[in-house]
Amino acid sequence: MERVRTIAAAGHVGRVIQLQGWLHQFRELGRVNFLIIRDGWGTFQAVVSDPATLERLRSTQVESVIEVRGVVVAEPMAPGGAELHETEVTILVPVAEPPPLELNKREMKANLETFLDNAVLGLRHPKRRAVLRLAAAAMAGFRATLDAQGFTEIQTPKILGSATEGGANVFTVDYFGRPAYLAQSPQLYKQLAVGFFERVYEVGPAFRAEPHATTRHLAEYVSLDVEFGFIEDHTTVMALLTAVIAGMIGQLQHACPSELALLDARLPEVPARIPSIFFPEAQQLLLERYGLDCRGEPDLAPEHERMLGQWAAEVHASDFLFVTGYPTSKRPFYTHPSPTDPRYSNSFDLLFRGMELVSGGQRLHQYQDYLATMQTRGIAPEPFAEYLKGFRYGIPPHGGFAIGLERFLMQLLGLSNLRLAAIFPRDLNRVVP
Amino acid sequence: MERVRTIAAAGHVGRVIQLQGWLHQFRELGRVNFLIIRDGWGTFQAVVSDPATLERLRSTQVESVIEVRGVVVAEPMAPGGAELHETEVTILVPVAEPPPLELNKREMKANLETFLDNAVLGLRHPKRRAVLRLAAAAMAGFRATLDAQGFTEIQTPKILGSATEGGANVFTVDYFGRPAYLAQSPQLYKQLAVGFFERVYEVGPAFRAEPHATTRHLAEYVSLDVEFGFIEDHTTVMALLTAVIAGMIGQLQHACPSELALLDARLPEVPARIPSIFFPEAQQLLLERYGLDCRGEPDLAPEHERMLGQWAAEVHASDFLFVTGYPTSKRPFYTHPSPTDPRYSNSFDLLFRGMELVSGGQRLHQYQDYLATMQTRGIAPEPFAEYLKGFRYGIPPHGGFAIGLERFLMQLLGLSNLRLAAIFPRDLNRVVP
Repeated sequence: MERVRTIAAAGHVGRVIQLQGWLHQFRELGRVNFLIIRDGWGTFQAVVSDPATLERLRSTQVESVIEVRGVVVAEPMAPGGAELHETEVTILVPVAEPPPLELNKREMKANLETFLDNAVLGLRHPKRRAVLRLAAAAMAGFRATLDAQGFTEIQTPKILGSATEGGANVFTVDYFGRPAYLAQSPQLYKQLAVGFFERVYEVGPAFRAEPHATTRHLAEYVSLDVEFGFIEDHTTVMALLTAVIAGMIGQLQHACPSELALLDARLPEVPARIPSIFFPEAQQLLLERYGLDCRGEPDLAPEHERMLGQWAAEVHASDFLFVTGYPTSKRPFYTHPSPTDPRYSNSFDLLFRGMELVSGGQRLHQYQDYLATMQTRGIAPEPFAEYLKGFRYGIPPHGGFAIGLERFLMQLLGLSNLRLAAIFPRDLNRVVP
Repeated sequence: MERVRTIAAAGHVGRVIQLQGWLHQFRELGRVNFLIIRDGWGTFQAVVSDPATLERLRSTQVESVIEVRGVVVAEPMAPGGAELHETEVTILVPVAEPPPLELNKREMKANLETFLDNAVLGLRHPKRRAVLRLAAAAMAGFRATLDAQGFTEIQTPKILGSATEGGANVFTVDYFGRPAYLAQSPQLYKQLAVGFFERVYEVGPAFRAEPHATTRHLAEYVSLDVEFGFIEDHTTVMALLTAVIAGMIGQLQHACPSELALLDARLPEVPARIPSIFFPEAQQLLLERYGLDCRGEPDLAPEHERMLGQWAAEVHASDFLFVTGYPTSKRPFYTHPSPTDPRYSNSFDLLFRGMELVSGGQRLHQYQDYLATMQTRGIAPEPFAEYLKGFRYGIPPHGGFAIGLERFLMQLLGLSNLRLAAIFPRDLNRVVP
């Protein structure tokens, strides 16, 4: 007999079906006894009345792998409007003891550390795995939007010969006895790839040796990277990013209605044109509206981002806000300055509900500009020899951005910690499981 | 004026269009002078007759970024049946000197080392970038096939707390002062994820510190990984793999006709049922048909795989051949033995044109079986504590496989070296660019 998935079972009313999955819950209420089976997609309720089966279930641990057969009966009181009757149960893989986490309660009560310690089981919880299924849909929406616009997917190396992105937060690898480094982003490679394909994207791991244990940093995260050529300036990039975010949200809506419902997720509207504020004007606004004086500072602190997010929600009714024109000196060396006022850059951050979700902008594309800015900034050109070679032989005006997948999910779902959006998070203290 | 892509230009006969890209070639033949522009998708020929433009082009280096405007004229002699006339040229980003590789010859003459040293430019060559575009299509076909069958994409960590896959070929990372390791594969995680989603796949980097410089090993490669539960045995896995390979080939055909033509690629037929031979029978056949006595050996050498590939082509007219039942002792500890003869395993390799392309099979799923086999093999269970926890709490019968993306392309295209199928290959001697 063909196995039916739990999410399709209610469509088989009147027929005998077979389900496979895990013993999610067994509840003896006396008059009526319920078994709930969970499979990879959902759960389904079965009424058990056969005394021998009941006897067997009493000594069967939850999470045992089971096969259930019965007839589907419409039942308005049952979740999904149907349940299984005349239930026969086969134990496929028995479990000997109860798991260390309660996987069958609506909310998992474990605290964050206990959950993370037991994530190999905890991710079986319907609400926890739903986050990862949204992650998959977000990646699919990202790729589909870009594929439709002529982008090519690339997979760039994660082991690098030099720590070209600078900063202390780079991991060192023992590479056949020599030091090598884990990629902090595919930035330099994706820019070079504009020379082959014009339009590229990558979905892959990025590594940051963040020495701080915050709720919004991970040592390894999934970066959704885009870079493309023949742009006008950073506004071309912002327009593409808007389409990409809309594509990701659209895919969630399309592919994951039950996961969104389970998590009470409030999907944002993506405006056709996301509101945008120029960096110094944002600082002025923070002062005038919220009494926060950060004029002269080269970046926005998390608190400032929160306030700006609140302002965008109140004034523009938008969950998103572009902040443009961050001071050039504070952005990476490849950032393109504004042609009208080079103190400010053709760069942007996209705030989503008051947190930086995306960084991006226009990059330098002239070889001479790279040499000049590296000299000004005191960056030795040798480790960048191959990167610079790309620009020496013609790269068009280009730009791009990077979306942190876990941050996207954290803000979308209002998670309290970025670790709840990663499958097996890595941080200062955690490299297991 | 809206920019037109080169591959669409021939569809605009009689109209003035604008192209953007790189100066691929400029040829003065006296009577007629050609400029060839290359963009991210193809090339297009333009006839230049204006003396001032000709003068300017004489001092313009190839690879300069240009914009070209003109009227499209049907011309049977031109590649693609059309060319640009009344050509105006704007230099957007000039290049100062000729590149170190000839990017505008039908074949790039550089030897392998020179090409790899200059890959940041070499990958602009139409034939070289075509390989990477096929890579992108192969990934897309892989995902589409699995998405359609209810699989969920996962992204598992690449930094591991213990070197659980064993062997000497693991890279060590300095993880905040402690040793950690780069994932040799997502094997253990994808098995655990069967507990959440039943059906999972991952496309991501895998790291092997291969101390040998061979033409068919890389230190970092792209692994296309699949794992799924509620299988019958390894034959369920083989059937899925057959569909996945067909999906990948189908996507290449659909998305990349021009790249396939450019590379003279001969796409394989994927039989509805790929022929299969049992490991000891393969050894017998190698003896009887080719005089190669490898009976008693626990694995097939590359030469044996080549001969079997030849046999499959001759006798089954198939580019693919499954070899099943490799000796259990030679396969990883999680391999499921055959229930009828545990000396042999429910595993397989898929040979593609005589080279191992995929390894896969059924895995152990009973907690007790893991404990027993680890004891027998002398594997300490401690580093596997979290992995074993998954099995302790119920994982169904499952299996999966891993396809090496670069190997797939190498065999598909008859490349002489796996490095020609990677964007920026990593090996014993190479970690740049």
